[in-house]
Amino acid sequence: MDVAKILARIDDQFETHLIKIQDYLQIKSISATGEGIEETAKATANVLNELGATDVHLAETSGYPVVYGEMITDPSKKTLLFYSMYDVQPVEAEKWVVDPFAGAVVEEFEDLGRCLVSRGVINTKGPIMGFFNALKSIIEVEGDLPCNLIFAIEGEEELGSPHFPEFVEEYAKKLKRADGAYLPFFAENKVGKVKMWLGAKGIIYLKLRVRGGDWGGPRTRHIHSSYHSWVDSPVWKLVHCLADMKAPDGTIKIPDFYRDLIPPSAEDEELLTKLTETMDFEEIKNSLDISRFRGELPEGKDLLQQHLFSTTLNIDGLDAGYTGPGTKTILPCEARAYLDIRLIPNQEPERQIGLLKEFLKKNHPLVEIESYDAYPWAKVSVREPLCQALLRTYQAFGKKVEIWPHHSGSAPFYLFSRNLGMPFIWGGLGHGNRMHSPNEYAVVAGDNKVGGIREFEKSIVTFLYEFSQEKMH
Amino acid sequence: MDVAKILARIDDQFETHLIKIQDYLQIKSISATGEGIEETAKATANVLNELGATDVHLAETSGYPVVYGEMITDPSKKTLLFYSMYDVQPVEAEKWVVDPFAGAVVEEFEDLGRCLVSRGVINTKGPIMGFFNALKSIIEVEGDLPCNLIFAIEGEEELGSPHFPEFVEEYAKKLKRADGAYLPFFAENKVGKVKMWLGAKGIIYLKLRVRGGDWGGPRTRHIHSSYHSWVDSPVWKLVHCLADMKAPDGTIKIPDFYRDLIPPSAEDEELLTKLTETMDFEEIKNSLDISRFRGELPEGKDLLQQHLFSTTLNIDGLDAGYTGPGTKTILPCEARAYLDIRLIPNQEPERQIGLLKEFLKKNHPLVEIESYDAYPWAKVSVREPLCQALLRTYQAFGKKVEIWPHHSGSAPFYLFSRNLGMPFIWGGLGHGNRMHSPNEYAVVAGDNKVGGIREFEKSIVTFLYEFSQEKMH
Repeated sequence: MDVAKILARIDDQFETHLIKIQDYLQIKSISATGEGIEETAKATANVLNELGATDVHLAETSGYPVVYGEMITDPSKKTLLFYSMYDVQPVEAEKWVVDPFAGAVVEEFEDLGRCLVSRGVINTKGPIMGFFNALKSIIEVEGDLPCNLIFAIEGEEELGSPHFPEFVEEYAKKLKRADGAYLPFFAENKVGKVKMWLGAKGIIYLKLRVRGGDWGGPRTRHIHSSYHSWVDSPVWKLVHCLADMKAPDGTIKIPDFYRDLIPPSAEDEELLTKLTETMDFEEIKNSLDISRFRGELPEGKDLLQQHLFSTTLNIDGLDAGYTGPGTKTILPCEARAYLDIRLIPNQEPERQIGLLKEFLKKNHPLVEIESYDAYPWAKVSVREPLCQALLRTYQAFGKKVEIWPHHSGSAPFYLFSRNLGMPFIWGGLGHGNRMHSPNEYAVVAGDNKVGGIREFEKSIVTFLYEFSQEKMH
Repeated sequence: MDVAKILARIDDQFETHLIKIQDYLQIKSISATGEGIEETAKATANVLNELGATDVHLAETSGYPVVYGEMITDPSKKTLLFYSMYDVQPVEAEKWVVDPFAGAVVEEFEDLGRCLVSRGVINTKGPIMGFFNALKSIIEVEGDLPCNLIFAIEGEEELGSPHFPEFVEEYAKKLKRADGAYLPFFAENKVGKVKMWLGAKGIIYLKLRVRGGDWGGPRTRHIHSSYHSWVDSPVWKLVHCLADMKAPDGTIKIPDFYRDLIPPSAEDEELLTKLTETMDFEEIKNSLDISRFRGELPEGKDLLQQHLFSTTLNIDGLDAGYTGPGTKTILPCEARAYLDIRLIPNQEPERQIGLLKEFLKKNHPLVEIESYDAYPWAKVSVREPLCQALLRTYQAFGKKVEIWPHHSGSAPFYLFSRNLGMPFIWGGLGHGNRMHSPNEYAVVAGDNKVGGIREFEKSIVTFLYEFSQEKMH
C-alpha cells in the first residue's frame, strides 16, 4: 500500500472532503428530541453505499436504527469493527458564535485559526465523515482497503445507548468476525499533544421525582406557598434526599456504594505515573474553564487517580416550581432531579442501582426513580495489538502520545470487550473540543503544531495500514 | 340611606355589572412580565373617573404605577382607604378549562353552578370591579356615598409590593385622612361560611444562586458531566446549603431564626379556641388538594396555631442544568433556588435577612443572595370598629363568621397599621378559590347556601353604611 500517495491524495481532495463533512453536520440529529434522526441515518447509509460497502441497511431496534454495513473483500485480512454515533447533544439556551447546525467554517476561531464550529463536529459526526473521506482516498489510489471493515453506527449514544445492546446481541455473529473495535475521534489537544485512553467509565443516568400524595403535599397542582405552614413540600423531600446521597466533601453516602471498587492495576499505576510526568494541568483547567480542581489534592498523580478511578454522582439538572421572570409564590406539587453516576472497576450498574433503591426505600421512600439507563465500564490493555497499531500511527506522524489508563467519560465499549470479547480503542489525529457545550469546534487543516480534520483523515490511512500488519490474538 | 333599594338596584343591573367585570378580567395584567400592566392601570383609572372620583391619576413609582383617586364629598363623614391590586399571577404550564384571560362564564363549573373562571377573578380584579359596581348602584340611588373613599390600587402586589411603600410614604398626608384601610375580597368558603382574618404574615422572597468561580466549578458554561470527578458542582453546593437551612422535620436551622417569636396574644388564643370549634379541616384539605396536613399534630387547635403562627421556609422553584426531553449529561455552571419565608410576630424582615446572611457567610459562603424583597407582618384587633362594621355586615346577611386571628398569606397591610397608624380589614361576601392556581374561579350569583359576586356587591353597600355609622378612634 502506497501510504504516501494516499496522503497526497487527501491533500488534493481536502476541500471536497470538507464540504462532505459540512453537509453531514448540517443535518440535525438530536436524539433527545428525535429531530433529523431518520434523515441522518439514511445519509450515513448512503455514504457507505457510495463507498461500495455491502449489506448496507438501517438495523431496526426498539429505538433509533443502527446504520450497518460491511467492506469485507478478503477473509484472510484483519477485520476492524467501526463503531460510532450519528446522534448529537441538544442545543438549548446555549450561546454560539455561529448557527450550531450550519456546519460553519470560522476563519479565525479564538486562537486556533480556521475551525469548523458546529454541534457534532468532534462528537462525533466530524470523525465519521472524515473516516469515510479517508476510505474514499485509499480506494481511489489502491482500489482496495488494507483490512476488512464492519460498520455499526448508532443513533442513541447521547441517550446512553439504550438499544445498542439489542443490536449487538442480534448481530453478534456478524460482529464477532472483527479483531477489534474502533471509534474515530480527534485526540489531539490544543497544542498538538495526543491523548489515548484505555477505557471508559460506566454510567447510570436517572431521574428522581417526588410528587404529592397520600403522605402529604399537593397532589395534582401547585398551591399558594403560604400553605406550607401545614402542607408538606415535595421539593424539600427531594432536596433532603439529594443532600443525604452525597456529603459536602463529595463522598457518596449511599451505603456500600464503594464496596466493589478495586485499586488500579499494575499497568494502570505505571501509566498514571508516566502520565503525571507529561500532563499539563493548566491546559486541562483552561479547556474546562475552571480556576481549580475539586477537593484538596495537589495537582499530581493522586488527583489524576481521583479523576480516572473514582465514582461520581453528578446533578445534571433540577426542576421544580416556577423559575420564570418575576415572582410566583407556590408550593410545587412535584420536583425532579436529573443525575448521572459514573462507574469504575468493578462496579456493576445493576448492583449499584440496587444499592440506590435500597437507600431510597429505607431513607427516602417518597423519592421515586422515574426512569434510568445504565451500562458498565470497559477497560483495554495498552499491550493489545489494536492499541499498539494506533500508537505506531501517532509515532509515524511524529506525535508524542500521552496514555491515559482510563477515561472519565462513558461509552458502551463494554459491548465490545465483554459481550463480543474483542479489544477496543478510539482516537486519531486532529483537535477539537467542547463536546456537549456551546461552540463545539474542530481545527480544519492543522499545521506543524496541531492537527486538524485533514490530519485526522491521514492518520486513518496509516492506522488501517498498521492495523492490517498486526498479529491479532 | 335606603339600603334595600340599593340592593334591589344591584339585582336589576347585575348582568351589566358582570360584563364590566368580564371586560376588566380580559385585560391581562401580569406583573411578573409586565404584560398589559399599563393598559390595566389606565382602565382602572377610567372607571374611577366614570364614578366621579377626583384627583384620579396614575401615581408613578420606581416600578408600575399606583392608581389613585378620591371620593371625598363631606369631611365630616368617615373615610375609608380602599386598597387593592390590579396585577395578577402569571399563567405558565397550567391547565385551565377555559382561556384564563377570557373572563369566561362557565355555566356548570364543578359542583358550583355558574362561575367566572379566570385569572384574577378572586385575586383581585373581580372584587375591585365588584366594589366599583356597588358604588355605582349607591350613587344611582342615593346620589352620594355614606362615607368618603380614597383609592390606592397597586400593580405589583404579586411581586411582593416592592414599590408600594414608596407610594405610601409620598402620599402619607393624603392617606392619613382615612379612618381605616380595606381590601375587597370574596370571603365565603364553598358552603357559604364566611372567614375573617385579623392579620397577615410578613414575607421575604429571595433568589439564591451558586456560580462557578475562583473556588472551583465551571465559570461560564456547562461542561461535560464526566469531569465532575475533578470539577466541583455549583448545584451540589446549593443543594447542601438548602438542606442545611431546614431540617427534614421542617425546623428552620438558621441560627436564632425563631428568636423574636412571641406567643399568640390572649385575644389570639381565645379566637383560636373558638375557631377550632367551627372550622372544617376536611374542607381545607379538599380545597388544597391534599390528603393530610404536614407534621404529626392532630387536626385541632395546635395545628391551627402552627398554620397561623409559624414561620415557614418554602421552595418556590429550583433551576439548574438541563431538564428538557432526553438526556444531556452536563455539570452546570450555576444553580438557583427561589424561596419564600413567611414571618410572624415579632420577626422583622431586616433582622431575619441579617440572620440568613450571617448563616450563609459562615456556612455556605459560595451561596449568593441574588435578590430579595420583603415586608413585615401585620395584625389588627377584632375590637377595632372597622372590623366590627364588617362583622355586622355579615350578620346582616345572616352569615356565620369564622374569625381567624391571623392569615398564613402575606399582604402589605403593615403599611396601614404601622406606617399610617390605622386599622385594616379585608373581606366581603361571595365565594371564589384557587388564587395562584389553575382554574381560579368565583361564583357569579349565589343562592341561599353560598354567595357570589352579586352578593359581594350587596355586602359592600351594607359595609359602607355600617362603617359610616361606626365611631372611630
